[in-house]
Amino acid sequence: MSKSSPPQNHPGMMTPEEIASLRKKSQVASLWLKLIMSQHEIPLLTYVRRPRLPAPAQFETPEHDRRLDMSNTISNIPYDELSIGQSASLTRTVSEEDIRLFAASSHDTNPAHLDADYAAGTQFKEVIMHGMWSAGLISAVIGNQLPGMGSIYLGQDLQFRRPVRVGDTITATLTVVEKNDAKKWVTLETVVTNQNGDKVVVGKANVLAPTEKISREAIAVPQVTLA
Amino acid sequence: MSKSSPPQNHPGMMTPEEIASLRKKSQVASLWLKLIMSQHEIPLLTYVRRPRLPAPAQFETPEHDRRLDMSNTISNIPYDELSIGQSASLTRTVSEEDIRLFAASSHDTNPAHLDADYAAGTQFKEVIMHGMWSAGLISAVIGNQLPGMGSIYLGQDLQFRRPVRVGDTITATLTVVEKNDAKKWVTLETVVTNQNGDKVVVGKANVLAPTEKISREAIAVPQVTLA
Repeated sequence: MSKSSPPQNHPGMMTPEEIASLRKKSQVASLWLKLIMSQHEIPLLTYVRRPRLPAPAQFETPEHDRRLDMSNTISNIPYDELSIGQSASLTRTVSEEDIRLFAASSHDTNPAHLDADYAAGTQFKEVIMHGMWSAGLISAVIGNQLPGMGSIYLGQDLQFRRPVRVGDTITATLTVVEKNDAKKWVTLETVVTNQNGDKVVVGKANVLAPTEKISREAIAVPQVTLA
Repeated sequence: MSKSSPPQNHPGMMTPEEIASLRKKSQVASLWLKLIMSQHEIPLLTYVRRPRLPAPAQFETPEHDRRLDMSNTISNIPYDELSIGQSASLTRTVSEEDIRLFAASSHDTNPAHLDADYAAGTQFKEVIMHGMWSAGLISAVIGNQLPGMGSIYLGQDLQFRRPVRVGDTITATLTVVEKNDAKKWVTLETVVTNQNGDKVVVGKANVLAPTEKISREAIAVPQVTLA
């Protein structure tokens, strides 16, 4: 994926044909983006909540609060910009395909996840998502958002509290709870909830935070087809 | 996937044509199995080490030591059959496709995993696998082998010690270290090593073990195609 910034549009220096061509390119790109986002269920709003401090002046959004701007640029949050209480989250709705995709990635083919007949005889009565998939959501928030690029994942503890089922809308929320200035480590509370607010996974992550600001074009989620 | 047992071959009751047809079917199935196993890097030998007790009489392999028999039947290890020191493992060699597949499953698109140019400028000098992928291997050993079907994953802690790179051969080994007879919980030491024996991930898993023996046809790893 190119790291160059998007071409600047200077209408005065372009022929009408060039402008029309550029407009078309932009429309095509926008349609592709919409298509990719909808196919991968990328939420339109991946937000970083500000720590609970006095509200900033209206319409002044700090730079690190809109890391997915219109040119699809993504930025990390270096150690010095991290503060206790700061949080970020990612929400996805679980499909059967998501379960098979995790089985393909992990090779965990336990029938509780992949065989509806078998699952009907279990305490959950239907197939459930692998617990470790929710940990993947946590990993995504760390890797993409908080702290994002340059983070080194040091550790994670996980308690699997409830099953995740097909159709559930699952949100992983990470909140900075501790900073270690000497080592540039941050501890994040990691809570994964379903659409009813039930905690499905709880735990804590330890991350070596980046020290330098990085901004670059976001990478799209790779496309896969299940046989 | 069918749960019925494979058809029994009674040559005396079949015409030569039926036998030839059956033989061909079996060859075709075997070729498919080989293809699927090679494509998904399913190790030919997924083994369960016996606890370090006096060796059993030669050639007498206990039933739970060969859960992947020739008819591809898989069995779990219920709580009462679990003993301290018993272990199981899964080995896989990491490809770039495995990294993209984990990114597709988790939506963690950090460029350290997906962009070789970016990764060249990091301390690891090349793309590395997501740490949480190794946790997926641990999940696979629990779900498929130890204790296998009927297990409920209660918790996992993970320390990510070293990077996993493309071409690394990674083994997740789980060993029973504690049993709780009242709650039917087992604690497993979970160690993930590379081809040099370096520990890349260490931790512990807590699992509610199944109480009943389950044997059934193993489910193949779902096939995926990356765009």
